[in-house]
Amino acid sequence: MRLPTEKNSFHAQHSAVGAHSSFTLGMHGAPGGLALEKGQPADGAVYVGTIVNDQITVLPFFEHMNNSEIARFDHQNQPETCHDALTVLEAKDITRDYRFASDHFITDDIHFEVISPFGDLPDPSTADQATNKRAACPVVFAKLTVDNRQGKQTKTALFALGEHGCPMPIHEPGKFTGFLFGNGNLGFATDALVEPLQTFDLSKAKKPDGTQLVPRFGGSYGFMMDVAPGECREMHISLGTFRSGTATLGLEMPYWYTRFFTNLRDVLEYALEHKDWYYQQAAQRDAELEATTLSDAQKFLIAHASHSYYGSTQWFDDSGKPFWNVNEGEYRMHNTFDLTVDMLFYEMRYSPWTVKNVLETFIQRYSYYDEVRLPNSDTTYPGGISFTHDQGNHNNFSPEGYSSYEISGIDRRCFSYMTHEQLVNWICCTGVYVCQSQDRAFLTRHLKTVKDSYTSMLNRDHPAPTQRTGVMGCESSRCNGGGEITTYDSLDSSLGQARNNLYLAVKSWAAYLALAELFRQTDETVLAQQATASAKLCAATVMSKWDDVLGYIPAVFEDDNQSAIIPAIEGLVFPQVMGLKDAIALEGPHGAFIATLKRHFLAIFKPGICLYPDQGWKLSSTADNSWMSKICLSQYVARSVFGIDFGQEQAAHDQAHMDWQIFGSTFNACSDQFSSGKAMASLYYPRIVTNILWLTE
Amino acid sequence: MRLPTEKNSFHAQHSAVGAHSSFTLGMHGAPGGLALEKGQPADGAVYVGTIVNDQITVLPFFEHMNNSEIARFDHQNQPETCHDALTVLEAKDITRDYRFASDHFITDDIHFEVISPFGDLPDPSTADQATNKRAACPVVFAKLTVDNRQGKQTKTALFALGEHGCPMPIHEPGKFTGFLFGNGNLGFATDALVEPLQTFDLSKAKKPDGTQLVPRFGGSYGFMMDVAPGECREMHISLGTFRSGTATLGLEMPYWYTRFFTNLRDVLEYALEHKDWYYQQAAQRDAELEATTLSDAQKFLIAHASHSYYGSTQWFDDSGKPFWNVNEGEYRMHNTFDLTVDMLFYEMRYSPWTVKNVLETFIQRYSYYDEVRLPNSDTTYPGGISFTHDQGNHNNFSPEGYSSYEISGIDRRCFSYMTHEQLVNWICCTGVYVCQSQDRAFLTRHLKTVKDSYTSMLNRDHPAPTQRTGVMGCESSRCNGGGEITTYDSLDSSLGQARNNLYLAVKSWAAYLALAELFRQTDETVLAQQATASAKLCAATVMSKWDDVLGYIPAVFEDDNQSAIIPAIEGLVFPQVMGLKDAIALEGPHGAFIATLKRHFLAIFKPGICLYPDQGWKLSSTADNSWMSKICLSQYVARSVFGIDFGQEQAAHDQAHMDWQIFGSTFNACSDQFSSGKAMASLYYPRIVTNILWLTE
Repeated sequence: MRLPTEKNSFHAQHSAVGAHSSFTLGMHGAPGGLALEKGQPADGAVYVGTIVNDQITVLPFFEHMNNSEIARFDHQNQPETCHDALTVLEAKDITRDYRFASDHFITDDIHFEVISPFGDLPDPSTADQATNKRAACPVVFAKLTVDNRQGKQTKTALFALGEHGCPMPIHEPGKFTGFLFGNGNLGFATDALVEPLQTFDLSKAKKPDGTQLVPRFGGSYGFMMDVAPGECREMHISLGTFRSGTATLGLEMPYWYTRFFTNLRDVLEYALEHKDWYYQQAAQRDAELEATTLSDAQKFLIAHASHSYYGSTQWFDDSGKPFWNVNEGEYRMHNTFDLTVDMLFYEMRYSPWTVKNVLETFIQRYSYYDEVRLPNSDTTYPGGISFTHDQGNHNNFSPEGYSSYEISGIDRRCFSYMTHEQLVNWICCTGVYVCQSQDRAFLTRHLKTVKDSYTSMLNRDHPAPTQRTGVMGCESSRCNGGGEITTYDSLDSSLGQARNNLYLAVKSWAAYLALAELFRQTDETVLAQQATASAKLCAATVMSKWDDVLGYIPAVFEDDNQSAIIPAIEGLVFPQVMGLKDAIALEGPHGAFIATLKRHFLAIFKPGICLYPDQGWKLSSTADNSWMSKICLSQYVARSVFGIDFGQEQAAHDQAHMDWQIFGSTFNACSDQFSSGKAMASLYYPRIVTNILWLTE
Repeated sequence: MRLPTEKNSFHAQHSAVGAHSSFTLGMHGAPGGLALEKGQPADGAVYVGTIVNDQITVLPFFEHMNNSEIARFDHQNQPETCHDALTVLEAKDITRDYRFASDHFITDDIHFEVISPFGDLPDPSTADQATNKRAACPVVFAKLTVDNRQGKQTKTALFALGEHGCPMPIHEPGKFTGFLFGNGNLGFATDALVEPLQTFDLSKAKKPDGTQLVPRFGGSYGFMMDVAPGECREMHISLGTFRSGTATLGLEMPYWYTRFFTNLRDVLEYALEHKDWYYQQAAQRDAELEATTLSDAQKFLIAHASHSYYGSTQWFDDSGKPFWNVNEGEYRMHNTFDLTVDMLFYEMRYSPWTVKNVLETFIQRYSYYDEVRLPNSDTTYPGGISFTHDQGNHNNFSPEGYSSYEISGIDRRCFSYMTHEQLVNWICCTGVYVCQSQDRAFLTRHLKTVKDSYTSMLNRDHPAPTQRTGVMGCESSRCNGGGEITTYDSLDSSLGQARNNLYLAVKSWAAYLALAELFRQTDETVLAQQATASAKLCAATVMSKWDDVLGYIPAVFEDDNQSAIIPAIEGLVFPQVMGLKDAIALEGPHGAFIATLKRHFLAIFKPGICLYPDQGWKLSSTADNSWMSKICLSQYVARSVFGIDFGQEQAAHDQAHMDWQIFGSTFNACSDQFSSGKAMASLYYPRIVTNILWLTE
């Protein structure tokens, strides 16, 4: 969508699939550029524009500075100007067209596109070599078109990076001109007939005298291409990253793309040769989103989320088998299960095999069996299987059975265990994966784990079957005396405590339903009936917590908690996407439960409770910390499960959330945690792709 | 030597040989730590000290901050304190004993040593596998001794790094406890029985509860070791770097150490197993310097220079053959020839094979043949062989025959060609290498290059033999109309211009003498006589430039230049170290020349001309930019060639230069270019090892 002028300055990630890299730009006057394995924007400059005579005109994709690095070398002839000598375009000069798989910046005479193709990611175990290679290529594209058809003098098209480190220049005119930097792990190249440029500061950009690149430690480098009067010419640029050899520790793996490419030049060259295919894939995505009936703000949020998601993805080679990892944005934790369960819907659309891959990693390496304990008691009882919060961080895998996040001995605060929630997450993910993929072999293979999960759910409720409520009542022995938390760890206690937590209770109900469905599909009739009964028990307990005085269900069923939380309804997404229509039908077996949650939602979804003054959604009445991914998810549930039509208000909600991203997270691309519209944490985050659900409504 | 309290705060590099890495620390309140391939100090924290109950006492090797990174995760429970909670020792609490191959920090109860062993570097082509491996191991050591013999309660010894990025922890108690970070390329380990520590900020340093390291993304990590009352215990730590695979572009090479080690853990473990040998090697160096009759300031300057040199060294594997590279400090240019010729004396002492190696790289890859041009004329004449200024930068090798620095079309300014000077440098290096090593095979193998060099020298003088003066008179065609410069590029024009330059003329005289000697050794009698005649012609020309009005020889023999420069005498070092006693004898064939230069030196070596008010040496009367490496070299010439005894003044000179480094380059370890005692450029520089010559006086 074409953005209004006042909303055209913000960073977007432009990322290859599975390379954990991003070519980030779009915010005016800010650093950006190409980075690898970094949970934040690059710290460089991107120069895109034209040179006419001595006049250099560029888009504002760099931080304005006047300290040329030439001063480190030449003390006699200090430069007078640096960025001051450039004509830097302003917001009013630029039209930004932000799309699902591309980002366009259009001025009077240039059209600069950044293209980040994605689509159905082929299952590497069944795809042929060529398809695998194309899918794994760690590259995005830039296309610079300079229109000089009305011009009277030559315009020189300019594309360069600055502040990215000293490069290795390569110049084979008209075939391959490129720069490799960052230990040879990052680079860009073009097949256009260009003059390479390398200089200390861009204000000195001009054609070299032809004898050589000069000097080879100049920190601004790129391409210049003459466009004669009457001409319109294009420069196609591939921007890639390549990390060779073992890229991880703890579990040592290279990137998947190293099976198909020998080095970065190989990647950049291949990409330029196959650009038409990639451009077409991106155009399909652009058209797909454009064709929906969603509003521009909704399209923006979907596109923005998707852009940030790929920057966090990492596709490894685990001794010949693919290993999928999504990093947790700025935190770079691996496959954080809280995120996996929210990004599930996106991955089921574009890469169902990655869902299977992650679920199996959790089974094989990151599951554990514990015991449980009732609150305020030291007696332990049988617990059961659960899964770790994550699988490590920053390319360092944690030991088998342990996350990098969870610490024992903490009582319901940040960094405690999330044993119950991750168990629920595994069950819900498995339910959705099996139902949507029809992968019966997977279910058969892991039926024992599914059964163990059910046992574990029951044991975490209460050791005595007769005292079970369907809701988590025990703490894991892993807590070592402390208490478990939920993914909303850093929000307020209304969402942080796991035990007797409304959000987690409803998600547990969904997990019981998922178990029942999985047992039904494997003809485990008795277990299916039992799991259905567990779900009903859970629903009854939750309904019993309705507080007539408050007019809603409090967030935590103890300690007189009175918080009102929207995520109460989050769990309903699972039966909905699993196709369990009965379970969510108002006239179905859980009709009263669904009606109660709808009533809860309608009661709290009001200004001053769970709505910000700007019409943005506020997840909890008692915390000024609202998460975009969860807002998107709850919107989907409210509309598609409850059938709520927000009418005119919908546009106001969407506009607010779009503004949070553009004005509240301008530098950090798509972020998750917002405090009154300002991104406060979970920056540069992949999780917001929950909003892919909107495309299915 | 033990430093006075007011001089104990400055950074020193502690570096393995050939790994281009450094564990830099020593400046109080400043960032430092372990870095790989970085032309400046690491940006981290180093925590060394003790924990007694809740009291954490540490050396001041970090930048004081109170923004704990926990705030990015936990918004509910922000830390009240961070570094404020630490007791940070001050200069007065610390005794620093700075030695040739170690650095000691001593307080009431701890002794912390950083040990960076070096010595005779075995020739890899003749050394056996075990010797090669030991020499190439990319490691330095830290040893922390905590003395609790007088204590009444347990003291916990603490060693940790902070702000070095998320690590991979490994804990095999009493065998190997370590942390790997920076893409697994940097790390440290101990074989002591310690508790590993990992925390968000060091103020929370305490023993974990034993279940696991917590949380695994805490950015401060290291070791804790209990020392019971009555005990004194040591913790030995290996600190290493390891970059696997191809480390360079342009000319693709891995590090030499990858032949012997498979990964960083392998390095760290091997080092701990062999620490006794390394400690002994370092102790030999320490004793060697200590045993000299030099003053403490002189010892400091030698030790400081050596510490910075190794951080710039890089030892590669060029298809099975060693490839030696010294990076140019902060600029990271490869084997900058201006530096090679100054560091020659150091390398002839510890690693003569590296001199040969670099000279051969210049012959094989970085030599070229040009034409020459008289000033103010377009006519070209035969030129000859010369060598590039450098071989690339930042691990990117420049194309054959080209440096990364030199640009054509520049007239006697920074970044122009240095064709004549690099020719002179190659000849002088070769002369010294052959004379000191007696490597006749080398000389025989490269006799053609030696002969070509002589022809090239002559052609650069004047195309007409009858008009030759022995001094450079032509510009290289590589300048493309511009004019050549010298290594003193960024100083003033008195030293920058190459043509008719006093400094370069005297160095040319030395080159002619070296040629004569090389021809003599190969029985090229006619050439030897001719080269001797060239030297005499050169000497005569230089003497003829004596200006009675000025009372010295002006720096440039044209344009009424009146600068007085100390480097006029620099070239005399070469016949001196080649053992050409006749050449420098006052009563020898060049006696008048030597006497003239001595008279020149004595005339200008005066306050207000070539002496700063603090008694530091000022290389040029017209520039406030004085280079420590060149000062050290000229001191050597003045004393050992001219026989000057600076008497009481010597101590003042040395003290000034020591203070320049300590107070003028506190953060950047040993630096080269100083403006009135403040390091202004050529920071973190290897070149100052010219002062190794002092050990031979």
